[in-house]
Amino acid sequence: MQTSSESSRIHCPRLRSKIMSAEAAAALIPSGVNVGMSGFTGAGYPKVVPSALAKRIMDANIYGKKFKIGVWTGASTAPDLDGALAMVDGVEMRLPYQSDPTCRKRINAGEMEYIDIHLSHVAQFVWSGFLGKLDIAVVEVAGILEDGRLIPSSSVGNNKTWLDQADKVILEVNSWQNPELEGMHDIYYGTQLPPNRKPIPLLRTQDRIGEAYLRCDPAKVIAVVETHSPDRNSAFSAPDENSRKIAGHILEFLEHEVKKGRLPANLLPLQSGVGNIANAVMAGLNQGPFENLTAYTEVLQDGMLEMIKSGKLTCASATAFSLSSGALAELNADLGRYKNNIILRPQEISNHPEIIRRLGVIAMNGMIEADIYGNVNSTHVMGTKIMNGIGGSGDFARNAFLSIFMTPSQARGGEISCIVPMASHVDHTEHDVQILVTEQGLADLRGLSPKQRARAVIDNCAHPHFKPALNDYYKRALDHSPGKQTPHLLEEALSWHLRYLRQGAM
Amino acid sequence: MQTSSESSRIHCPRLRSKIMSAEAAAALIPSGVNVGMSGFTGAGYPKVVPSALAKRIMDANIYGKKFKIGVWTGASTAPDLDGALAMVDGVEMRLPYQSDPTCRKRINAGEMEYIDIHLSHVAQFVWSGFLGKLDIAVVEVAGILEDGRLIPSSSVGNNKTWLDQADKVILEVNSWQNPELEGMHDIYYGTQLPPNRKPIPLLRTQDRIGEAYLRCDPAKVIAVVETHSPDRNSAFSAPDENSRKIAGHILEFLEHEVKKGRLPANLLPLQSGVGNIANAVMAGLNQGPFENLTAYTEVLQDGMLEMIKSGKLTCASATAFSLSSGALAELNADLGRYKNNIILRPQEISNHPEIIRRLGVIAMNGMIEADIYGNVNSTHVMGTKIMNGIGGSGDFARNAFLSIFMTPSQARGGEISCIVPMASHVDHTEHDVQILVTEQGLADLRGLSPKQRARAVIDNCAHPHFKPALNDYYKRALDHSPGKQTPHLLEEALSWHLRYLRQGAM
Repeated sequence: MQTSSESSRIHCPRLRSKIMSAEAAAALIPSGVNVGMSGFTGAGYPKVVPSALAKRIMDANIYGKKFKIGVWTGASTAPDLDGALAMVDGVEMRLPYQSDPTCRKRINAGEMEYIDIHLSHVAQFVWSGFLGKLDIAVVEVAGILEDGRLIPSSSVGNNKTWLDQADKVILEVNSWQNPELEGMHDIYYGTQLPPNRKPIPLLRTQDRIGEAYLRCDPAKVIAVVETHSPDRNSAFSAPDENSRKIAGHILEFLEHEVKKGRLPANLLPLQSGVGNIANAVMAGLNQGPFENLTAYTEVLQDGMLEMIKSGKLTCASATAFSLSSGALAELNADLGRYKNNIILRPQEISNHPEIIRRLGVIAMNGMIEADIYGNVNSTHVMGTKIMNGIGGSGDFARNAFLSIFMTPSQARGGEISCIVPMASHVDHTEHDVQILVTEQGLADLRGLSPKQRARAVIDNCAHPHFKPALNDYYKRALDHSPGKQTPHLLEEALSWHLRYLRQGAM
Repeated sequence: MQTSSESSRIHCPRLRSKIMSAEAAAALIPSGVNVGMSGFTGAGYPKVVPSALAKRIMDANIYGKKFKIGVWTGASTAPDLDGALAMVDGVEMRLPYQSDPTCRKRINAGEMEYIDIHLSHVAQFVWSGFLGKLDIAVVEVAGILEDGRLIPSSSVGNNKTWLDQADKVILEVNSWQNPELEGMHDIYYGTQLPPNRKPIPLLRTQDRIGEAYLRCDPAKVIAVVETHSPDRNSAFSAPDENSRKIAGHILEFLEHEVKKGRLPANLLPLQSGVGNIANAVMAGLNQGPFENLTAYTEVLQDGMLEMIKSGKLTCASATAFSLSSGALAELNADLGRYKNNIILRPQEISNHPEIIRRLGVIAMNGMIEADIYGNVNSTHVMGTKIMNGIGGSGDFARNAFLSIFMTPSQARGGEISCIVPMASHVDHTEHDVQILVTEQGLADLRGLSPKQRARAVIDNCAHPHFKPALNDYYKRALDHSPGKQTPHLLEEALSWHLRYLRQGAM
């Protein structure tokens, strides 16, 4: 991490006059404020001001002074933002999503408040004043035009909202970001608060409905910091056997749906969560029979980039990149070529219920556990410990044409069953979950009652090691449950989780 | 219930030739089919064919023959539909919502399958083929034009979809329905399956975007039955003290939001669930300071009708009436006058996420219980017994500008606390619940972490009788929970429900 001398990216004289060091910029952030930071899955987060701020907080702590801020972002960021601020216990309230180990530890120790919000809801909640005042925005950009407009970085996230809503703005201009990013974004300025909302005129994944630049009132900019620092890369490992099997079940299912006439031959726009299973599904699609695919999703992962290169995927709309270092290097070497295939949008649009419903997105998201009736837990380990957060999974699943949730059937070497009698926390209800997939198989829950779902989930998704115990629970629930719409034995419903907590295995 | 001789309502000669008795029409429905029936909260359901069919099923059963059908509706219906068919055990699968005591008993005894679906999802799921084949539609209408178009009855529900998707159609023409209904409906034929969906051009509650009539291919009509029978009336009792207190808290909150500039002076379109609390809120608004209100909701209850009469409510959009006999008589005496104030739409539009989000609806729905972290159970008593169903509460709450859930703090004379440590079933997750209200007070959960929510919910909403036990649970959970994002003691989390089941009191 270093400050570059390449200041040719700041073409606005008024903003050039605000150039200062990260330390000087961080000194402008007082304790007690809410700060809206850029950043989405390790792309486009501010690289130097947060850690300079962490240093400032540590210094204050040494002198016994309390110094905490509220940190709002697009989604997860990186160790030099979430990690650094959590390390010095500098975060009072974090929203809407995180995946940092230090941050997670603080939250689960009860030392940091965390609000886990649908990513599509953040912009409107802030604009409506539901989350309190946004004081300062700290936003990374790839450059500044002469008239003050900003070239967005490798993620858009909530930046439009932060720049618009914050009283003061600190910009980081990162000369490491590829100049070819210019023109890749589509920033829509047509959203309103009710009663002034209009239809969002996006009809197809490839539609551009906005502008290539972020607007920012130069009078609000209190600091401009130059950086030359890479994004956090996402680790990428080749899909393991379970991921390949899950991908195989999904592909078989999609082919079946096309054959039945329930999906077009080129499917519908794909949404895919982050991780190895998602990459495996993309790898499978890249080998598969479908052509002219599109993706309307949050993040562009390695698997989708491969599909763009092969021509299988004609267009991907996202709000951020989330690439391995190899894929990123490859992309950056030839970024200009992809401008017709990749569009980066604000997350209020990438995750907007109106658009997801209209396009008929096929939503594929990971999960922690599902219960036999199809309720899905995406966020809490054993019901109380936050893992990351709901992210966009609810935005997509709830409004999708097809909502698919996937996980290996077991975790921790077989000590945990990911199919349980009752989910220990519910993020996606029985009303919103259509397809469950593990390496064991796929359960199509559409048109099934809870009892029929239980049969499908146990038979198709549970690991053989846990199947007898699930069948035993379900059979006894059927016999003894007071109500038989959703048969349960309340005294046992969470006993699998308790057993794990007490004995280390379900 | 009787067949009228007034056949002047059937102006299409081709359909006049299909007039027959209810028994003859019911004889055209074989066992094993899926039947899409009209009806939404006791309005506009077929009055005679279902009970004639029930008789036919009973006769078959007497001779030892199995005779069951799938029953799909708009929402709840009436004893002569749901009750009659459930009584003879004639329903294999019921969807998407019911509230009939006999039906409920069968479902909870495990004798009838029931799929509890978001009301906005039904039309697209059927169209997409997700729920199997719709064989026969049985739809009540208020009249038939010469060209075969249908004057919709006192509810629209899923009728457009049933008429479109079913192979065969049976029409009941109910001369009891007010002829002035003609022109009150707005049937939008612009919905599509993806990838052909377009923005729905509805920008304000009062917009009409469709036609006054339902289309129906006369070639599919296999029977026309004449009836002259009233809708099931909704019982209406004057608001009790708890309902008035809940209404008072909500009004105070809305005034506060207007004062803070977070709501316009005439609020935003209101959605309100069915029941006495909802009516009390409307009564409160009718006395309150807000003018020029609108309602974008599912059903038009007595309270809203009063507000239209007083001029407080300028327009109500719904999919059905749900009135007491007194209010209905009053409305029918002067229905023509209300055509500018009332619009009845298909439920795919009244509950459409795109529209609810765009209009910024204020969603107010009842619930069975909420837990201290803001998860809401709308459907299952003690986690296993279905009460009615989720209905439209998810459609509205998830996409609303404000999502409010309300209940008295206690049930069954104080044996049940409606605020519990952990909800025994989750229909609305912590991510989708903003405001909880009981007669004790209102908890504004916006911008609060789970632990902050617990404090707000216990302090503001719990009954004093249960407050100490809730505080005790929460305190011990804070101390001993493995994770402190959502502190729980899993061995106790459902113990309140278990205690009620075993000892008759929580």
